Amino acid sequence: MRWRRMQTSPFRTADERRADREEKREAVLRAAVRRFNTHGFHASSLDDVAATLGVSKPTIYHYFGNKDQVLFECVTRGIEQLRAAADGARQAPGTGLDRLRDFLRRYVGVMIDDFGRCLIRTADEALAPDSAARLRALKREIDQAMRDLIRNGLADGSIVTPDVRLTAFALAGALNWTARWHRADGELSADMVAERMVDLLITGLAPR
Amino acid sequence: MRWRRMQTSPFRTADERRADREEKREAVLRAAVRRFNTHGFHASSLDDVAATLGVSKPTIYHYFGNKDQVLFECVTRGIEQLRAAADGARQAPGTGLDRLRDFLRRYVGVMIDDFGRCLIRTADEALAPDSAARLRALKREIDQAMRDLIRNGLADGSIVTPDVRLTAFALAGALNWTARWHRADGELSADMVAERMVDLLITGLAPR
Repeated sequence: MRWRRMQTSPFRTADERRADREEKREAVLRAAVRRFNTHGFHASSLDDVAATLGVSKPTIYHYFGNKDQVLFECVTRGIEQLRAAADGARQAPGTGLDRLRDFLRRYVGVMIDDFGRCLIRTADEALAPDSAARLRALKREIDQAMRDLIRNGLADGSIVTPDVRLTAFALAGALNWTARWHRADGELSADMVAERMVDLLITGLAPR
Repeated sequence: MRWRRMQTSPFRTADERRADREEKREAVLRAAVRRFNTHGFHASSLDDVAATLGVSKPTIYHYFGNKDQVLFECVTRGIEQLRAAADGARQAPGTGLDRLRDFLRRYVGVMIDDFGRCLIRTADEALAPDSAARLRALKREIDQAMRDLIRNGLADGSIVTPDVRLTAFALAGALNWTARWHRADGELSADMVAERMVDLLITGLAPR
């Protein structure tokens, strides 16, 4: 944001310094998540991440304590996006199935983006034990949100399934897997993947 | 197999020695896959695996060249089980959908077992580059088997879907995820999980 330095005073305001710091921290996080997604967490050093930004590792440490903290923030960003998807879906009009459909479509969008992809690709044991425990608790919240949306559809008759928990796992699994196979440069756009995949889960394979 | 030593001659035959070696190699592989599944590949050393068998690391090296080779054999065992599932399903009677259902149920059984679980939990980049390339080729074969079974169902009208490739990914994702959440000591047996999950994918969430 060099233009800021071109203003009348050569000294930046506190707000500008804060925004600048936030922007740089964000750039570090985005570079890290992309590196983890392409090379794997274990094969990625903070030196690698620093190199993609043209800075040195101490610069990274200025924003994050260690590699585990970087990974933890990447996966919690993914969780936050899923939580926002659930919050948005709860406000949607229509039946319980309509709201679940809305959630599932937003969910695919998260899976196809950097942080959601990282969330799915990261095994709990890659994190330090206390970070892993916190992540598991956050994942349970998303799982609960999915189950609640399914239960709402059961209550109004728009969804039929004998097992809410297993249904939530099946839906999450189908959508989570998108993070493994979908390529941003592939033939299917994120919206198309979301639409077709969610339609399939709602209507099933057998003719109606 | 101590009873073998109780026979009239104290010397084992070549067949017995071969069987003994095979049994020990199998025990190493089973101990390794369980360790990888519970602690993660990166956090597991061959010393850890040896310790669970009450032997030393050189004993492991008697059967496997290195840790990458152990992991590669674990994941290819998972692939072989999926291939056997596809072979079995192709022989099943009924419609294309019946054969696909048969495959999906067998598939869940593989996911819940040690080697299938390891296959899903292992990111390609955990393997050495040439092992990773071989694994990707094997995975494509399973993906093709899934797509062929779906196409057969489309051909006889027992399956309806606009996108074979995406359907194969959705089904695989839902089933693969079982390897992440299912606990052998949980309330649902493998058969029950397989039945309910496959029924859901075939009939969908919306009432029929």
